Amino acid sequence: MLISGKEYVERLSDYEREIYVRGEKIEDFVNHPNIKPVVNSIAMTYDLAKKKEEYSPHSDLVDEKVNRLNYVNKTPQDLIARYDFQRELSMRLATCNYRCTGSDAINSLYPATKELDERLGTDYHKRFLSLLKDIQKNDYACTAALTDTKGDRAKRPKEARDMYVHVVEKKEDGIVVSGAKIHQSGAFAADVNFILPTQTFREGEEEFAIAFAVTPEDEGVKFILQNTGYQAMFREGGEFEMGNPLYGDRITCTVIFDKVFVPWERVFVFEDLKAIRNTLTNFAISHRCVGASCKAGFIDSMIGAANLMLKANGLEKVPALRQRIGEMVGVSEAAYAIAVGSAVKGRESYNTWLPNALMANAGKVVGVEGFNKVIMHLAEIAGGIPVTAPSEFDLRSPEVGKYVEKYLQANPEFSTEERMRIIKFIEFWITSSHFLGAVHGGGSPSAAIIFLQMLADLETKEDAVKDVIGLKKE
Amino acid sequence: MLISGKEYVERLSDYEREIYVRGEKIEDFVNHPNIKPVVNSIAMTYDLAKKKEEYSPHSDLVDEKVNRLNYVNKTPQDLIARYDFQRELSMRLATCNYRCTGSDAINSLYPATKELDERLGTDYHKRFLSLLKDIQKNDYACTAALTDTKGDRAKRPKEARDMYVHVVEKKEDGIVVSGAKIHQSGAFAADVNFILPTQTFREGEEEFAIAFAVTPEDEGVKFILQNTGYQAMFREGGEFEMGNPLYGDRITCTVIFDKVFVPWERVFVFEDLKAIRNTLTNFAISHRCVGASCKAGFIDSMIGAANLMLKANGLEKVPALRQRIGEMVGVSEAAYAIAVGSAVKGRESYNTWLPNALMANAGKVVGVEGFNKVIMHLAEIAGGIPVTAPSEFDLRSPEVGKYVEKYLQANPEFSTEERMRIIKFIEFWITSSHFLGAVHGGGSPSAAIIFLQMLADLETKEDAVKDVIGLKKE
Amino acid sequence: MLISGKEYVERLSDYEREIYVRGEKIEDFVNHPNIKPVVNSIAMTYDLAKKKEEYSPHSDLVDEKVNRLNYVNKTPQDLIARYDFQRELSMRLATCNYRCTGSDAINSLYPATKELDERLGTDYHKRFLSLLKDIQKNDYACTAALTDTKGDRAKRPKEARDMYVHVVEKKEDGIVVSGAKIHQSGAFAADVNFILPTQTFREGEEEFAIAFAVTPEDEGVKFILQNTGYQAMFREGGEFEMGNPLYGDRITCTVIFDKVFVPWERVFVFEDLKAIRNTLTNFAISHRCVGASCKAGFIDSMIGAANLMLKANGLEKVPALRQRIGEMVGVSEAAYAIAVGSAVKGRESYNTWLPNALMANAGKVVGVEGFNKVIMHLAEIAGGIPVTAPSEFDLRSPEVGKYVEKYLQANPEFSTEERMRIIKFIEFWITSSHFLGAVHGGGSPSAAIIFLQMLADLETKEDAVKDVIGLKKE
Amino acid sequence: MLISGKEYVERLSDYEREIYVRGEKIEDFVNHPNIKPVVNSIAMTYDLAKKKEEYSPHSDLVDEKVNRLNYVNKTPQDLIARYDFQRELSMRLATCNYRCTGSDAINSLYPATKELDERLGTDYHKRFLSLLKDIQKNDYACTAALTDTKGDRAKRPKEARDMYVHVVEKKEDGIVVSGAKIHQSGAFAADVNFILPTQTFREGEEEFAIAFAVTPEDEGVKFILQNTGYQAMFREGGEFEMGNPLYGDRITCTVIFDKVFVPWERVFVFEDLKAIRNTLTNFAISHRCVGASCKAGFIDSMIGAANLMLKANGLEKVPALRQRIGEMVGVSEAAYAIAVGSAVKGRESYNTWLPNALMANAGKVVGVEGFNKVIMHLAEIAGGIPVTAPSEFDLRSPEVGKYVEKYLQANPEFSTEERMRIIKFIEFWITSSHFLGAVHGGGSPSAAIIFLQMLADLETKEDAVKDVIGLKKE
Repeated sequence: MLISGKEYVERLSDYEREIYVRGEKIEDFVNHPNIKPVVNSIAMTYDLAKKKEEYSPHSDLVDEKVNRLNYVNKTPQDLIARYDFQRELSMRLATCNYRCTGSDAINSLYPATKELDERLGTDYHKRFLSLLKDIQKNDYACTAALTDTKGDRAKRPKEARDMYVHVVEKKEDGIVVSGAKIHQSGAFAADVNFILPTQTFREGEEEFAIAFAVTPEDEGVKFILQNTGYQAMFREGGEFEMGNPLYGDRITCTVIFDKVFVPWERVFVFEDLKAIRNTLTNFAISHRCVGASCKAGFIDSMIGAANLMLKANGLEKVPALRQRIGEMVGVSEAAYAIAVGSAVKGRESYNTWLPNALMANAGKVVGVEGFNKVIMHLAEIAGGIPVTAPSEFDLRSPEVGKYVEKYLQANPEFSTEERMRIIKFIEFWITSSHFLGAVHGGGSPSAAIIFLQMLADLETKEDAVKDVIGLKKE
Repeated sequence: MLISGKEYVERLSDYEREIYVRGEKIEDFVNHPNIKPVVNSIAMTYDLAKKKEEYSPHSDLVDEKVNRLNYVNKTPQDLIARYDFQRELSMRLATCNYRCTGSDAINSLYPATKELDERLGTDYHKRFLSLLKDIQKNDYACTAALTDTKGDRAKRPKEARDMYVHVVEKKEDGIVVSGAKIHQSGAFAADVNFILPTQTFREGEEEFAIAFAVTPEDEGVKFILQNTGYQAMFREGGEFEMGNPLYGDRITCTVIFDKVFVPWERVFVFEDLKAIRNTLTNFAISHRCVGASCKAGFIDSMIGAANLMLKANGLEKVPALRQRIGEMVGVSEAAYAIAVGSAVKGRESYNTWLPNALMANAGKVVGVEGFNKVIMHLAEIAGGIPVTAPSEFDLRSPEVGKYVEKYLQANPEFSTEERMRIIKFIEFWITSSHFLGAVHGGGSPSAAIIFLQMLADLETKEDAVKDVIGLKKE
Repeated sequence: MLISGKEYVERLSDYEREIYVRGEKIEDFVNHPNIKPVVNSIAMTYDLAKKKEEYSPHSDLVDEKVNRLNYVNKTPQDLIARYDFQRELSMRLATCNYRCTGSDAINSLYPATKELDERLGTDYHKRFLSLLKDIQKNDYACTAALTDTKGDRAKRPKEARDMYVHVVEKKEDGIVVSGAKIHQSGAFAADVNFILPTQTFREGEEEFAIAFAVTPEDEGVKFILQNTGYQAMFREGGEFEMGNPLYGDRITCTVIFDKVFVPWERVFVFEDLKAIRNTLTNFAISHRCVGASCKAGFIDSMIGAANLMLKANGLEKVPALRQRIGEMVGVSEAAYAIAVGSAVKGRESYNTWLPNALMANAGKVVGVEGFNKVIMHLAEIAGGIPVTAPSEFDLRSPEVGKYVEKYLQANPEFSTEERMRIIKFIEFWITSSHFLGAVHGGGSPSAAIIFLQMLADLETKEDAVKDVIGLKKE
Repeated sequence: MLISGKEYVERLSDYEREIYVRGEKIEDFVNHPNIKPVVNSIAMTYDLAKKKEEYSPHSDLVDEKVNRLNYVNKTPQDLIARYDFQRELSMRLATCNYRCTGSDAINSLYPATKELDERLGTDYHKRFLSLLKDIQKNDYACTAALTDTKGDRAKRPKEARDMYVHVVEKKEDGIVVSGAKIHQSGAFAADVNFILPTQTFREGEEEFAIAFAVTPEDEGVKFILQNTGYQAMFREGGEFEMGNPLYGDRITCTVIFDKVFVPWERVFVFEDLKAIRNTLTNFAISHRCVGASCKAGFIDSMIGAANLMLKANGLEKVPALRQRIGEMVGVSEAAYAIAVGSAVKGRESYNTWLPNALMANAGKVVGVEGFNKVIMHLAEIAGGIPVTAPSEFDLRSPEVGKYVEKYLQANPEFSTEERMRIIKFIEFWITSSHFLGAVHGGGSPSAAIIFLQMLADLETKEDAVKDVIGLKKE
């Protein structure tokens, strides 16, 4: 089924959830100024899916069209469609769409549970398919939560058990879990949350090797929202002061699990080191590729903004500035092309098409370094006026509005308000949480580099050199 | 005279000023949550001056000790002391001290007015000295305003007169000026504002070639504050939620001049192209050197924060992370060393010691590129938790405080609150306006690169090459 | 037909060519120490094609298997195979394979001549197919020559006619051309040279808008070889002193056309601005993609060398150095993935599959910046010993051989000679002409950036921003 | 005494030295094509010293003027003069002057031996002064050798004794040493070689903690020259083909010590861990600062070459290319300014003025990264023609000279030969050993970064942060 963004919002309004902002439980969360932008963003994932064939493939599992984000990708073309969707969402939202982790979890658990069952004769995959059917039929929005708060990094999980989501009680009909997950983008506005471990584990640590799903309504699930300047600005209101007025900054939360009961039907890996390793490896490469296409879309948005700024300033013909635009385009296309390349050079795993692991990690590195470079270019093009401009309230002020109206205008083809909207939007890109999100989303660049070194086929490269310089090969 | 920070604040409290925040004129500006941090920062420039000899030199002009920021530097050592002061202020405030432009204006106008008088037999330098005496005797805080809003960049000043601060009436006892200056850091909290043009002018544009001083109380002077997320957070209050609770983000404003009368005693350049060129050249190189030492201080603060974060996470012994610290230190020391080098290799101009112009511009470039690199390192060290962490209000919440207390702790030598204070401070460095300020403060890096190319002694370098490769020299 | 490398060399030995090294015409060019490595490299393009299906596709044109380098690519998979071949060649040769420009010319002229004929009713495409059949049937090695020497860059072609390859006489059976092409890699060792203009032209400059083919034996065609230190070393001989003893540095030449007669059958564009524009655009994007996969292969070789060096030094377990390896791998995979992505997101043009233009240019930029970064990493890993090591002649010296044998050994699993071979090979990568080749091959990075800015769909990006911030779209 | 370059060469001609090139002992080394450029370079250190006061200070030790390179620096001004000398030499030579390590050794051993004697009551300082007097009086050229070949890096010195220069016999009148030093620039053309350890040592490794001096004539001292393409080109001859015809590439050698007797008078540290640590620390920071000013001079040369190339191509007014020049100037001035800054912020140690350690390391990092960036800019400005150009022998060839003459000309204000000289000189900068020399000279950038992290006053920075965010200080 494909529902509309509006239907998603209506469904969301029926839920009761425990969500905290600045220490207080909020009511009518769907309309809270800090959550509304998240809801708007997710709604776009519904509406856009209806507009393009490739964003709503036919699922054999439920024999109907489903959102690409809830689909198990079977071919390179599927993955490319996935990345196209991601890039377009990122460009159109200029922020997170909040469902990429859900999609990655579905595409990670599908093959991992299948392998687990084939290995052990269990029925985890069936359980998973059962939930997946529900998700596809109801067009649920899903997220995945991985990052445990970890506490003192010097300790292993067993020594710091509470800092990892873990089982506190094992019952006949399910398990009871406690712990916390941090950095969770939009989990509070989804229908289903997949819960995966933050890392792989060693022998003896099986108890942490679990994967399951909850709903945000489950008893004991609590969401504590992050709080940044952009949230404060949304609370203060205004039409465009916050830069990205419709979709806002990426909003994350800490999810608390205080003795949450999870029925066995929603447990997909239970104390199995290998299945968790598979799940996490699948997830990491999926997420890094999606991240590369996401960064491409973000940079597209920054390019659009930069070009509008040049026009609004009367500078769109200055060669040195056009060159900056060209460099920004190069980064965007590079990040996206790497995602496409990784789709094509991927591999099948238990009926799921997974991206190329090396390229996925390369995409992560290029995406982050590119994002950083692009921010510099955007800053150089924009001048200092993002962050120093008067507010929209000044523009509307009976006392100083006339000054702002007069002095903030540049190219007469843009009204002062239009130019200020562009300025505030650029401020948003430069000072919001997206830079840090780009660095750490899907793991740090350092982590990607370690993977690159581990996964590379160094022997073939060494052998080629040995041939050239006349060294014996083993 | 050297007054204390407290005395500065008391004096400030007596002033009546027209200051707007979000479109509304504010009362008791000194205690407004968006201005208090600025006042705190400037107060530090008073208190710190009293603590070190080199920050409070003896001025022959008034025959007493004065703040280094109000001093006319005579020697390389003076300039080095100036940069030391700047670096220490930046490190201790973790934000702008708001007086660097005032100091640069004093050191620019001093030689420029002297040259002007020697050339034309006028008395501008005397007028300037008279104000400078007042400034030194009363220990006034000064700023300088340069950036006109310019409007459509395709037009020359004459076509877009209103967009440049300009004389609307010439009277016997002074001039009346109108226009606006944007990007003005802390001008509303100073005692004296120097007003200089945003650029040099061609023949026929003499009318814009003026420099003068106003006080923030002058009739027709209006300050419209910038508005960013950090200001919104300060308005919402809290103890540490805003990261840098005492000194805040750099706060700028747009200064409106609505028919402001300036007596001749405060006019220092009047329609003279050369004197303005001298003033602006002096100002640019002074400001870029100060900017390099400022960036060194900012990076010192980020290094301190990064190291505390490593400790609070239990990661201070990880070699790859220590290496990041080393790279950050390298940037800080490089930026500062360039400032010192430019002081030593500077030149005298009419009893004022000015920094080396080439090095000043090199310092600008290294400072910006370094700042960008350091932000990346800080982001990598910090992880995603700045921007995703719960708020201090969550920590104090009766409902979720216990979860935050438990799950946000890491190394037991730091309380959860201490760790959160560090986290919020790092968030401040990554998402505040300082990155954009670093890029554009003192002019864009591109502007510095153009200067480097123009000022370089290319002929000597070409001649050396000709000698090596056997080409005839002219 | 697919001939072997050996057969190619034999055929080459039968040709008479006018080739100059250090001002002197050489005899037995195939065995000249500066040309032998080129011949060895091209021979590999024959031998490797026989080893993999995807390197020797079936050509309908001649109804037999042909070398991928002489094939007109019809599908994305064709292009990917092309890039795989390129990457593998670059890795195995650690230098140029000299045939990429020929392949790009074939894939550029095929659609361009077809369009030309459809537009004008001419028979250029037929002529081209006729030569292509010969090429495929005989398995000829082809190159393409574009870069005119241009002379004073301030002048347009008409003012500097001689500096552009141009027609000096038009005859019934063909044209007579004069001029020179510089930067020609391996043209002297090919069977066919395609000659294309260095740039597009404006109306009135039609006379330069020509494309044709010559053979290196044609009267009036003269090859003047470049001369660098590596050529000098090859002339001096030795077993491994020159780093890449089998395949050497990339050897280019200046090709002189002194009244060369070209029969009409080998003229493919004659005074047509549009067909030349198409040809050059096709060529540029083809060559930049191939260049990206070539750089991937080069970096693979450098990674292999770096890892061998770490082992030979006993340092292969140092985390900081392994990290460098990871970063190098990231660059290689990124460059290659972009090529693959551009194949997939390419487009058909007159039965030819061309890569995505934006991604092709992005690949160029990433390839160059990556190459530069990788060279730094390789330099850091290698230490100073490449360039400072004794020579192989010292190792074999009765007088000092024992010292070299003793003091140059490190990890006992590598003999001193093996370690020295690795060292000299790394020296080759760092000091050969490949860095400059990477910068300028396929056009400078600046040219690519200009294309990126020109080709980008900025309007869609601007529109997305307008939707987000509430600006009206046109 | 100040001798002339000519006198230095004459003195050199009288020496008998054991020098090997390509495995063979050479005669008349002074005029060997691979050594002549080194001799020319060192001669410049004599001639230039006579031209400027600051390059030939008065030495109290011998009560006469001495070369700055043999002087013990007492003040910041001394060090600045030292860096000015270095920068000018590097610019004028476009290669190594070969005496910087000698100067650094003198300035390292002076305070270290003084400390040693004060601590232990020994007379090492007196011995050192005795040699220094000779050096100053005779105006000897000195070098220092540090890098042992080390062998398998996994082993400590005791396990791999032979790979470190060590004492094989202790006699009444001196010691006998064996071992080898690699990476020794120009040691064979000096009068005195200081021999220092490659690293500091732990307790139990005292036997390696020695420092002494030899002369290149001492029995058992053998020099094996490096061999690169540039040496091969010099052996082949020509007027300008080798790019830097007078001074050539930096020529290093491996120095073999085969039971070399060193009298006690020339032993300055004998089995003392602390004195060696002091010596090496002094040396490292001295050398890194000198290296920064050296890189500035190299970049000056590249800037001169780049600007000549722009002129010779008729491109000197293209803004994008002028911008590259500006960026190159920025790097040069930054590196130099850091050296100056480190001189000013240095410290006295036993009557010797040493540079600031932090800044010295920052200078190393900025110098290397800058050099790498500058090479890219130079490559972009030059185009592909360095490495692809015909040779000077082609230009002079009766057969093809006329073509080269015609087609290689551009701006008519430069003859073809002049343009080719510029081209070959740029080729030299891009493909010679200087890039690798810049990376590793004075230790790798990684080593500098580790020092930066170790030496930084992190506590003060942390304390400043604690004050800002309200954490208790210890």
